[in-house]
Amino acid sequence: MNEARRSELLATYRDGLLHDTLPFWLSHGVDHQHGGIITSLNRDGSIIDTDKGVWQQGRFAWLLGELYNQVEQRPEWLDMARHTIIFLNQHGFDPSDGRMWFHLTREGQPIRKRRYAFSEAFAAIAMGELAQATGSEQLAKQAQALFLRFVRHNPMPKFTDVRPTRGIGVPMITINAAQQLRDSIELPEANDFIDHSIDAIRRYHVHEDIACVMETVGPAGERLDHFDGRTLNPGHAIEGAWFIMWEGQYRQDAELIALGCRMLDWMWQRGWDQQYGGMLYFVDVAGLPVQEYWHDMKFWWPQNETIIATLLAHAVTGEAKYETWHQQAHEWAYQHFADSTHGEWFGYLHRDGSHSTSLKGNLWKGPFHLPRMQLTCWKILETLVPSS
Amino acid sequence: MNEARRSELLATYRDGLLHDTLPFWLSHGVDHQHGGIITSLNRDGSIIDTDKGVWQQGRFAWLLGELYNQVEQRPEWLDMARHTIIFLNQHGFDPSDGRMWFHLTREGQPIRKRRYAFSEAFAAIAMGELAQATGSEQLAKQAQALFLRFVRHNPMPKFTDVRPTRGIGVPMITINAAQQLRDSIELPEANDFIDHSIDAIRRYHVHEDIACVMETVGPAGERLDHFDGRTLNPGHAIEGAWFIMWEGQYRQDAELIALGCRMLDWMWQRGWDQQYGGMLYFVDVAGLPVQEYWHDMKFWWPQNETIIATLLAHAVTGEAKYETWHQQAHEWAYQHFADSTHGEWFGYLHRDGSHSTSLKGNLWKGPFHLPRMQLTCWKILETLVPSS
Repeated sequence: MNEARRSELLATYRDGLLHDTLPFWLSHGVDHQHGGIITSLNRDGSIIDTDKGVWQQGRFAWLLGELYNQVEQRPEWLDMARHTIIFLNQHGFDPSDGRMWFHLTREGQPIRKRRYAFSEAFAAIAMGELAQATGSEQLAKQAQALFLRFVRHNPMPKFTDVRPTRGIGVPMITINAAQQLRDSIELPEANDFIDHSIDAIRRYHVHEDIACVMETVGPAGERLDHFDGRTLNPGHAIEGAWFIMWEGQYRQDAELIALGCRMLDWMWQRGWDQQYGGMLYFVDVAGLPVQEYWHDMKFWWPQNETIIATLLAHAVTGEAKYETWHQQAHEWAYQHFADSTHGEWFGYLHRDGSHSTSLKGNLWKGPFHLPRMQLTCWKILETLVPSS
Repeated sequence: MNEARRSELLATYRDGLLHDTLPFWLSHGVDHQHGGIITSLNRDGSIIDTDKGVWQQGRFAWLLGELYNQVEQRPEWLDMARHTIIFLNQHGFDPSDGRMWFHLTREGQPIRKRRYAFSEAFAAIAMGELAQATGSEQLAKQAQALFLRFVRHNPMPKFTDVRPTRGIGVPMITINAAQQLRDSIELPEANDFIDHSIDAIRRYHVHEDIACVMETVGPAGERLDHFDGRTLNPGHAIEGAWFIMWEGQYRQDAELIALGCRMLDWMWQRGWDQQYGGMLYFVDVAGLPVQEYWHDMKFWWPQNETIIATLLAHAVTGEAKYETWHQQAHEWAYQHFADSTHGEWFGYLHRDGSHSTSLKGNLWKGPFHLPRMQLTCWKILETLVPSS
C-alpha cells in the first residue's frame, strides 16, 4: 500500500468513527432518562423500539472505554461508559441465577434471557475498559468474574443428544474477550483461554482437506451432512481469522498468522459474491441450497470483519493480494452501506446491494462492528509501513 | 367468473394436484426403507437432507387421507397415509412426557421438540382422515386425544411475564383442525372450539379502528408498540380469514362471511406488493421498518392462502373485486413459483420474484400449502355458479 492510499484510508476510518458513527449513536441512542442506550433506530436516528439489548449495552460501554483508553481521555466518553455500566449493573442481571438477560424494556425490566452467555462476555470487556480507565479494582474483579462465568457457562441444550454439535462462536468470542481483558486488566487466565480456544478452532473447525472453516461440526469435528452442518458463515469465520492473526502478531507467532491467513483465504473464496460483490451471509459447503432465508443478503457486519481481516493480513504479511481484497471489500461496503444523508451504515441489503430496510439498529445492530472496524483499521494503518 | 375461466382454473388446480404436485412428492420424498416422507428436496427432487419434520409427516398423511376421502379411493393413497402414520406412531412421540417431537432423523431418532404443539394438531387431522377412510375407532380416538392435547397445551414461555403476548396462530390452527375433524370423525367438541377461537380472533386480533388483523397483541388485545407487536403477517391473517369464511359458508352465517371478507380486504391492502406483485411476508402496522430479515421476500404459502381466500370470497359473495384479486394472485404465483422443468413450486423468492434458492422443500415446506390450495380451489370451483 502506498502512502497516499494509507493516509486516505486512515482518515476515512478515523474521521468516520469520530465525526459520523460515534455522534450518530451519542446523539440518537443514549437514554438520558433511564440510562444505557437504545439501539433500535430508523435511518434518521429516530427511535422505533424503546427496548434495550443487553449485548448492545456492553458493546457500547466497551467502545467508549476503548476510545478513552486508546484514543483520547475525553470525560464525556468515560461518563457515558459509566452511565451504561450503571444501567447494566442495575438491570442486567437475573437475581434468581446470577445470569444476565438478553432483552430489557427501556426502564430495565427483563423480557428475555437466552441460552448462551454472550451478554456476560460483552459486559466483561466493557467493565475491563472502565476498570482500566478508572483504576477501579472492583470493576476489574467484576470483569474477570463475568468472563469466567461466560467461559464456564453450559447452555441448556436446544436439541436432544442424538446429534450433538459444537459451534465456532464460543471459542471465537473467548479469544477476543480474553485479548481485550489481557490489555485492559491483565487478566491472568487470558493466554490459557486463548490457547485453548485457538486449539479448538484448529482441531475441530479448520478443515484443511477441503480448505474450509466449518461453522458447526460434531463433537470431534465431524462434518454433518445436514443443513446445519453444511451451512458456512464466511463473515463469522473471517472474524475468527483476524482474532487469530491478531494473536499471531501479538506473540510474533508466524504459525498463528499463517493459520489466520489461510482461514481468510478459504472463506474469501467461498463467501465473496463474484456476481454482485460483498460478502454473502451463508453459503453451503457443498454448494447446495441453504435453509436460512436470508442466506444471500448482505449484512453490514460480515463486511466490517472482512475489511479488518484483509487489512490486517496485508499489514502482517505485506502480500499485495490482501490489499486488493481489502480495497474490494472496502469500496463495495462504503458504496452500498454508508448513508451519506443521515450518517452511520444501513444494516441489511439484498444480494444486489439494494436496501432491504432503512433500519440503522436493533437488538443486534448497534455501536459495535462498524466503529470497531473503524478504530481497528485506523490503528493498523498508523503502524503500517507504506511501500515506496 | 365466466364458465370458460371457471373450467380453465378448475383444470389447472385439479391437474396440477394430481399430475404434478402429488407425483413430485410420491416419487421423490417417500422413504420406503424407514417409513414416512423426506421433504428436504432440491429443485429436481433429489434429497439434500434426510432428516424428517414431524409437521410434514402429519400434513402428508392428512393430504393423502383427504384425497382418498374426497376425491377417489385409490389404495396407494391409503397405503401411503397408513405407512406415514405408522412411522409417526413409532417415532413421533416422546415417551417421557407424551409430547410429539418436531424434528427426527431419517430413522426416527429425535433431534428437537418445540414449545408449541403444532405437531399434535397436524397428526390429529391426519389420523382423523385415516379413521374416516378405514372406519378405525382406535384412530378416531387417537385423533381426538391429540386434538385435545394440542388445544390444552400450555407452551413453556420463551419470555418473562413482563410483557405477555397472545398470537393468532393457535386459534387459527384450532379452527382448521376442528373443521377437519368435524368432517372426518364428527369430533363432538368441534363447534365449541371453533366458536371459542373465532371469538378470540374477533376480540383480540381484529382491530376495526385501524382496519387490521394484528398477529401478536397483549392479553386483552392491546397493541404493543414494539417490533414484535407491530409486525403483521398478511398471508397468515388471510389464511385465518378463509378459515372463518369457510365456517360462515358451512353455517350459512352471513356475519362470519363478512368478518372473513373484512379480514381479507384489510390484509390484501396491507400485504399485496403494489410494486412487484405477490404477497409480502411481513409488514409493519405503522409502515416502520420490520425487524425480520426476510420481511420483503415472497414465500410460496402466503400466495397459496391468498389464492384460496380470494376465490372463496368471490364464491360466497359473488363480488367482482375478489375475482380480480384472485386472478392477480393466481397469475403472479404461477408465473414466479411454478417450476415447469421439474414440477412443484419453488418456495422462496426475492421481492422482485427472482429465486432466492432452488429448494423445493425443507422441514417447513412440504406437501401441504400448495396441494391444499389446489384441492380447495378445485372443490370451490366445482360448486361455483358461473356468471352468464
